[in-house]
Amino acid sequence: MRSVEDHLSAVLALGERLDAEQAPVGSGYGRTLAADVAAVVAVPPFDNSAMDGFAVRAADLEPGARLMVVGDIPAGATSVPWVGPGEAARIMTGAPMPTGADTVVPVELTDQPSGAADLPATVEVREVVTEGRHVRGRGEDVAVGDVVLPAGLRWSPAAASSAASLGHGTVPLVRRPRVAVLATGSELVAAGQPLGFGQIPDSNSILLAGLCEGWGAEVAMVESVSDDPAHFRAALARAIDADLVLTSGGVSVGAFEVVRQVVEGDISFDKVAMQPGKPQASGLLAWPDGRRVPMLGLPGNPVSVFVSAWVYARPLLAKLGGWSDAWPSSLLPATVGWSGPEGRRQFVPVKISEEGVTPVHRLGSGSHLVASLALADGLAVVPEDVTTVAAGETVTVHAL
Amino acid sequence: MRSVEDHLSAVLALGERLDAEQAPVGSGYGRTLAADVAAVVAVPPFDNSAMDGFAVRAADLEPGARLMVVGDIPAGATSVPWVGPGEAARIMTGAPMPTGADTVVPVELTDQPSGAADLPATVEVREVVTEGRHVRGRGEDVAVGDVVLPAGLRWSPAAASSAASLGHGTVPLVRRPRVAVLATGSELVAAGQPLGFGQIPDSNSILLAGLCEGWGAEVAMVESVSDDPAHFRAALARAIDADLVLTSGGVSVGAFEVVRQVVEGDISFDKVAMQPGKPQASGLLAWPDGRRVPMLGLPGNPVSVFVSAWVYARPLLAKLGGWSDAWPSSLLPATVGWSGPEGRRQFVPVKISEEGVTPVHRLGSGSHLVASLALADGLAVVPEDVTTVAAGETVTVHAL
Repeated sequence: MRSVEDHLSAVLALGERLDAEQAPVGSGYGRTLAADVAAVVAVPPFDNSAMDGFAVRAADLEPGARLMVVGDIPAGATSVPWVGPGEAARIMTGAPMPTGADTVVPVELTDQPSGAADLPATVEVREVVTEGRHVRGRGEDVAVGDVVLPAGLRWSPAAASSAASLGHGTVPLVRRPRVAVLATGSELVAAGQPLGFGQIPDSNSILLAGLCEGWGAEVAMVESVSDDPAHFRAALARAIDADLVLTSGGVSVGAFEVVRQVVEGDISFDKVAMQPGKPQASGLLAWPDGRRVPMLGLPGNPVSVFVSAWVYARPLLAKLGGWSDAWPSSLLPATVGWSGPEGRRQFVPVKISEEGVTPVHRLGSGSHLVASLALADGLAVVPEDVTTVAAGETVTVHAL
Repeated sequence: MRSVEDHLSAVLALGERLDAEQAPVGSGYGRTLAADVAAVVAVPPFDNSAMDGFAVRAADLEPGARLMVVGDIPAGATSVPWVGPGEAARIMTGAPMPTGADTVVPVELTDQPSGAADLPATVEVREVVTEGRHVRGRGEDVAVGDVVLPAGLRWSPAAASSAASLGHGTVPLVRRPRVAVLATGSELVAAGQPLGFGQIPDSNSILLAGLCEGWGAEVAMVESVSDDPAHFRAALARAIDADLVLTSGGVSVGAFEVVRQVVEGDISFDKVAMQPGKPQASGLLAWPDGRRVPMLGLPGNPVSVFVSAWVYARPLLAKLGGWSDAWPSSLLPATVGWSGPEGRRQFVPVKISEEGVTPVHRLGSGSHLVASLALADGLAVVPEDVTTVAAGETVTVHAL
């Protein structure tokens, strides 16, 4: 059996970071910035006032000085007055400094009221400030050409607002990986449809599509496909635009394993030393146009699908998308004991509480296996050489 | 000045949980399940095999027994053979048990090979299993009518796959709060557009829209609006479909505070004992159709917008959407010292590292104020009565 590490290495070797494309700054959150972003405008772009007050010449300032008010400068003013000796202009926070003035006296330090008042003819300075005070100089924060956002940053609203301030309308972001999800099984019918004899609702395609979306991928296609090789071949052909083809079921050793029947050769079928998720398929599909595209064939059991997706599909998507596949873990006590298989790494969906972690399929008589994954907020990992976890023992737990 | 707690209480009193609507199970992640979900089909919906093997009568089982193979049952079989005494049917994992059979002998315990082999005429049982073994009974996991997913659950791919298995095509989810974002300021131009005299790029609308989307809201409208009251009134009228109107700027005490000029009265303008974010507006807008819709007027400075959105808009959206507004925090040491205002709670965007937390505006000479928020992964909170944080002292830090 292949180790989990060896299989993960093989999976990660299937793909490289995708290309970047220009995207509007206010979009593409979770994608990766593909190049450094430098300022194309200075920040701030012009000298402006940091306070509501009066723009003056510092040379005129002394307690009790009365200055003539020659203009009113709101934010967004498209012109500014000339402020000469003995003069002042009323100015609002963020508004451009008028020519001639070098300092702002906050309204609170004058005889004028704050708020929406008529423009006064004169203003009396009651308290003096130092030259240049309350003026934000052009480029004080960033000069044109300064590199501000580094390549590799994961795109966020805060990064987007920075890029906008730096003069950008678009930024180069790594393309979001497009995933095609194919759940195989002739027994599957779409969620909510009546069940015929021997049929069950398709839940794996919903699970995989939702997980991939949550990890930052775009789900380009999601289908359930019968175990007829012709049907599966046709569905694969419809997945030609995907950057990753993800299947569930049909990878084991039964008589009708459709994924194995159709793609074995290009795709390798392995037994991986893990529980659940022993049968795993991985490789590069060869498209008619010559491209080779990664495919992961996960087992069909819902818990195997869930675990395999977290352990293999998540890091591969991170590599394609260019973001980190870091998966924080902590050591937490088990609230109950359980056993695991010898020689296989065990992955156990668990609920994390103040007391520790409890396998979700053991959450008491009121719980149902089918709902267990919905309750899991961690995945406990039990090493290959451990066959028993005792209550109170600590286990490694990854956050879900 | 109003305390942060008092202002938050006033904000939370503005809205109630929104109505629910039926949504496809594989959609609406992050929304809140509005009612318990019970099984409308049993899980599993029929007796089926847990293994690839042969369905037999336990009474026939003894080492070396040779049984006549009367049929082949793949998953998704639409009919099953009758298995009489001395007979067996080949069966795949998940396939319906044939009438007459009560037990499955895994293929590994027979003389037959696993994998895609022709159907044999007979099968020899090499190892015996107990009656009922490897058969999953109808309803073994969930009976029809069992409540499986509780109201209040935050919708996830795992919950969706459960709901599908329980027979549901749609589920009642609380409506996603629709937010209208209005950044005010005559100086604002759209990201990437050329700047005229006195103009700056609008970054607040991008920041607010992105944050709200990340918290699970739907951004129904995002605009930047001049400080002309007629323009702001017209923009507000376009926001009539929103569940929350979120503005930035125009709430302070300057001469041209457009938000204050247009909505003061319905909306209350307060000084809140926090830094940044002292001026805050909140209240209910009265629409012409008689509805009253929450509005939060945040200050205009980007860091104030960021902090105010996390502290007030995030929990209000959680209340509207019906999900938890829990905001985990931890105690971490400060890597450098800083000072805060007396009598106001200080919120400091910080970068969290192994050494502790560092205010992002202090990340060394290579950093730029405009990029600082993009580097923050925590928000440190310094109490009202603390004016100095010393290096090495612990502070409360919320994760961003």
